[in-house]
Amino acid sequence: LPSMQTSGSKPCPCPSFKLREVASVYFTMIAVFLVILVVALQGSAPRGTYFPYKVPLDPQGLLELSWNVSYPEQAVYFQILSRELRYGLLFGMSDRGEFENADLAVLWSDGHSSYFGDAWSDAEGHLHMDSQQDYQLLGAHSATEGLYILFRRAFSTCDPKDYLIEDGTVHLIYGILEKPVHSLQAINISAIRRGLQRVQLLKPNITIPELPSDMKTMVITAPNVVIPSQETTYWCYMAELPDSFPKHHIIMYEPVITVGNEALVHHMEVFQCAAEFDRIPRYNGPCDSKMKPDQLNYCRHVLAAWAMGAQAFYYPEEAGLAFGGPGSSKYLRLEIHYHNPLVFEGRRDSSGIRLYYTASLRRYDAGIMELGLVYTPVMAVPPGEAAFVLTGYCTDKCTQRALPAAGIRIFASQLHTHLAGRKVVTVLSRDGREKQVVNADDHYSPHFQEIRMLKEVVAVFPGDELITACTYNTEDRSQVTVGGFGIMEEMCVNYVHYYPQTQLELCKSAVDPGYLHRYFNLVNRFNDEEVCTCPQVSVPQQFSSIPWNTFNRDVLKSLYSFAPISMHCNKSSAVRFPGEWEKQPLPSITETLREPVPRCLPALGPRPAIPVPLKLGEIRRV
Amino acid sequence: LPSMQTSGSKPCPCPSFKLREVASVYFTMIAVFLVILVVALQGSAPRGTYFPYKVPLDPQGLLELSWNVSYPEQAVYFQILSRELRYGLLFGMSDRGEFENADLAVLWSDGHSSYFGDAWSDAEGHLHMDSQQDYQLLGAHSATEGLYILFRRAFSTCDPKDYLIEDGTVHLIYGILEKPVHSLQAINISAIRRGLQRVQLLKPNITIPELPSDMKTMVITAPNVVIPSQETTYWCYMAELPDSFPKHHIIMYEPVITVGNEALVHHMEVFQCAAEFDRIPRYNGPCDSKMKPDQLNYCRHVLAAWAMGAQAFYYPEEAGLAFGGPGSSKYLRLEIHYHNPLVFEGRRDSSGIRLYYTASLRRYDAGIMELGLVYTPVMAVPPGEAAFVLTGYCTDKCTQRALPAAGIRIFASQLHTHLAGRKVVTVLSRDGREKQVVNADDHYSPHFQEIRMLKEVVAVFPGDELITACTYNTEDRSQVTVGGFGIMEEMCVNYVHYYPQTQLELCKSAVDPGYLHRYFNLVNRFNDEEVCTCPQVSVPQQFSSIPWNTFNRDVLKSLYSFAPISMHCNKSSAVRFPGEWEKQPLPSITETLREPVPRCLPALGPRPAIPVPLKLGEIRRV
Repeated sequence: LPSMQTSGSKPCPCPSFKLREVASVYFTMIAVFLVILVVALQGSAPRGTYFPYKVPLDPQGLLELSWNVSYPEQAVYFQILSRELRYGLLFGMSDRGEFENADLAVLWSDGHSSYFGDAWSDAEGHLHMDSQQDYQLLGAHSATEGLYILFRRAFSTCDPKDYLIEDGTVHLIYGILEKPVHSLQAINISAIRRGLQRVQLLKPNITIPELPSDMKTMVITAPNVVIPSQETTYWCYMAELPDSFPKHHIIMYEPVITVGNEALVHHMEVFQCAAEFDRIPRYNGPCDSKMKPDQLNYCRHVLAAWAMGAQAFYYPEEAGLAFGGPGSSKYLRLEIHYHNPLVFEGRRDSSGIRLYYTASLRRYDAGIMELGLVYTPVMAVPPGEAAFVLTGYCTDKCTQRALPAAGIRIFASQLHTHLAGRKVVTVLSRDGREKQVVNADDHYSPHFQEIRMLKEVVAVFPGDELITACTYNTEDRSQVTVGGFGIMEEMCVNYVHYYPQTQLELCKSAVDPGYLHRYFNLVNRFNDEEVCTCPQVSVPQQFSSIPWNTFNRDVLKSLYSFAPISMHCNKSSAVRFPGEWEKQPLPSITETLREPVPRCLPALGPRPAIPVPLKLGEIRRV
Repeated sequence: LPSMQTSGSKPCPCPSFKLREVASVYFTMIAVFLVILVVALQGSAPRGTYFPYKVPLDPQGLLELSWNVSYPEQAVYFQILSRELRYGLLFGMSDRGEFENADLAVLWSDGHSSYFGDAWSDAEGHLHMDSQQDYQLLGAHSATEGLYILFRRAFSTCDPKDYLIEDGTVHLIYGILEKPVHSLQAINISAIRRGLQRVQLLKPNITIPELPSDMKTMVITAPNVVIPSQETTYWCYMAELPDSFPKHHIIMYEPVITVGNEALVHHMEVFQCAAEFDRIPRYNGPCDSKMKPDQLNYCRHVLAAWAMGAQAFYYPEEAGLAFGGPGSSKYLRLEIHYHNPLVFEGRRDSSGIRLYYTASLRRYDAGIMELGLVYTPVMAVPPGEAAFVLTGYCTDKCTQRALPAAGIRIFASQLHTHLAGRKVVTVLSRDGREKQVVNADDHYSPHFQEIRMLKEVVAVFPGDELITACTYNTEDRSQVTVGGFGIMEEMCVNYVHYYPQTQLELCKSAVDPGYLHRYFNLVNRFNDEEVCTCPQVSVPQQFSSIPWNTFNRDVLKSLYSFAPISMHCNKSSAVRFPGEWEKQPLPSITETLREPVPRCLPALGPRPAIPVPLKLGEIRRV
């Protein structure tokens, strides 16, 4: 796109344009579809070009994505700023960030003319024009900082080649064209500079609560750290609250990112340390260093968590997160994950998190509860599974025992698995009937864990059940994966943020070990195989000796969906509520939630679909 | 629709209309969408109003459906003739003929005006207007015999409330409005005269082969039978070929239906008797009568089969079905299924089948082969299952042994189960990779079994595998359903019609009985239950004593998809090909066929959708 090239040094001589004007040129070009397009693009002059969400796509920050979500239109408005555009770019979405079977918007130039089109890539990565153009170009304009491209995509289109934009993680992909291409088909997708970026595209539409006048702020930032020249660094920095800092409520927090490092700071968390330690040494260094004081491992109470693409986090107006005061540690640990795949050297960073807090305590303390599976090897995933589901239960008996009669309100959730995790969902059920999805991520990635505000607050009452299911992929593994703390072991957890705080910290389950023993016996007898079932052998060892044929795999699944469970209904991770928690029946579900059928909104355009020529020269002259 | 009322006795004074004219009035009414409609309705002036397929909807024949399929447009053109229209009618489709969650075209009148709309019924049977109008009205006109309504529906629309028209059986539903209604919502769907009719809507688009000049015909019809005044009668009539009738090829057959009985003759078959019997007594009476000679049970070789909605059946031009000649019986049995739900009395019928045959034998004799499951109790379906799948295999080893090197060509198929059958599919796989669907019916009904021509001939070579899966619903049963011949036992069979004829008559499987015994043992031990596993107890008895918890159900499924099989690779039902056929490994499939994603074609119209007023008066004046 030679005519579109801009650079930061040469100021662009062309004026900027109102979207309406750009859109009107576009409309005239396809006048025959005028009526329909006007209907389709009714909201296409976005309110003051307001794109509240922003994320760099590539590690150099050459491509910057901003976006906005219109729930009434069920569509996303995208704006890409391309700082050094050469011969075009690709932007799109795919299940897990792969470039095959992806849904792409492509801007390309043959050196003379430029085109925009909605395309898809097949299983071999070859590009094809979509028969229906659902990435709708709204405009393009040059500015000092680069070229802006604006387009719109409905969440759900009627084109089976298109990606369905859903809640939870979306894997965005991008590519940069550095040579002219004569057609879409001529683009060799495996030979271009490309990458992926994960974001929560469909940010919930939440009203920001009013903030009190006595609000104070506290910035916890890294002290001018030199970012190590390696792909991945977890940096740890210890901060301290003032002495005798009384109890406050954190009511909001937001990221503070050093300008220029937007593409390197992947996520950040602030933890409070355990109150048992009178003194914790200062530290400022990598979290995995041998020099790191041991006490830092006891700084695990989350005060704030931010991940790329997230905005400020607001507590609901009735609640705040308590910190300070007697019985709480004054030591805080800031952890920053630097993602530096291009191995920049000598970059300095002072990023961190700004806490907004108040001494006028709100009505409720917020709490965090762990749902899902106990960390135990009895819950295992066979090797070579594409989508194996493990389910953890928070039973009616436990919520009956532990929750107040008025119930609790869950307002945010952070999903957690180790490396094999691909999906996580928690569903609330009442009297055996599924009522509501608490949080679901069908494109979950263990590399992108953030605290997400729920679209709507979920009320949980005594007797309700919270069922958390995690889907794992172990196709690249030759050995069984058991539950546990190790990075190659697995977890299935949903940390739910709620109020008012209760004593219930953990509501998780695992299969009854006696039934697992019967399974080992059964596998032995049915297959005439030598599986050691002697009780002195550990569960991971017994699992390791199983020959993973389809029968043994299937029966393990059947066992997990039939055998009674051992419940951990705990006040803290070691103290159970009084009651009988062993060999509990599995909650039975008599009515499941109906899968929402996405209503597709076809984009209307010429058929067969043709690329839209970008007459940038003409637009400039407007 | 008072203005639309017609009756057979009063000749209608109005002229008939060309479809084009009717369509043009319709177009002017919605002029704003002209351009798009012209595109959408390009084929909407059907070639000479040609509706080759016809079926009565109700048992009285008041509603008669004719239709045509346009594969280029991926749409069906419907014509309904309503002989005594009162205040409107409903016509539509649903998964199994139910009136809840159905997709409906509705014509209704409030006594003054008439309307047409695309509607859907919810789980309670309440009617709603579709937000998108996919039943597109093409016209309506009166004639002496009644009112004709013409409309069009794409196979796949973009409306999730719409039924997806697929290959195989379609359950059509109809209703008759006998009182004026003021709105769609006012129709009480449970209080109207209504019913269902099953048809194969998507008839394959097959070129009719040229017929030889020496072709002769033979009509085998019931001799003026009085149809019994009961809902269901299977009528048996014995016919005879002339003495010393030489070998001929049947190359075509077609139904002969007594005029007026179109709604009563549900299906008909002509069987040839076994050659062992020198003489078989004449018979003309119900098939289940005690007076029926026993020898009629040996008349099971199918020569012709027709079911409601089917047309003439043509053999491919290279093949014919042999009959006559030495070694073949001269006795034929005609079986007619009369469906008489209104219990008409004294109706006389002489329906039957006309065979077209030739003495100039074609190159190949056609043959029939049985695929699927052996009739044995080891294949069982637990009670209370919504969709339990049993699978029968025709292995590579058997086709290797029995098929000629040049392979065979399957051109037609008849699916068969007993009452619990809901879906049947046969897939061809080669080297572990699924290659082609031989025949599939996702809306299969045991009450509608017809021989269906395949859309394309399937070539099967030595070493290929044919895998037949049947899905059963036993939600209404409290006892296990085992395989067998009884009506309450189950079968899973695909009778494939092919050429050239081979010795292979049966290529079916069942689970290895030894592995089933291990299952009974396992269930016993795992559940601490008293299942009698002593070998002297029969398999049905052992199955009957199983407590059907989820674990025992799941493990049975796992067993069937893991345990080795016993193959029946037979020349005739009792004679196996030489070879080892016990404890054979299950075929392993490494690559499955991709589910075709139906491309939806949205109908364009005003939103929110509004009913189309039927200005019949205006149309008459055209």
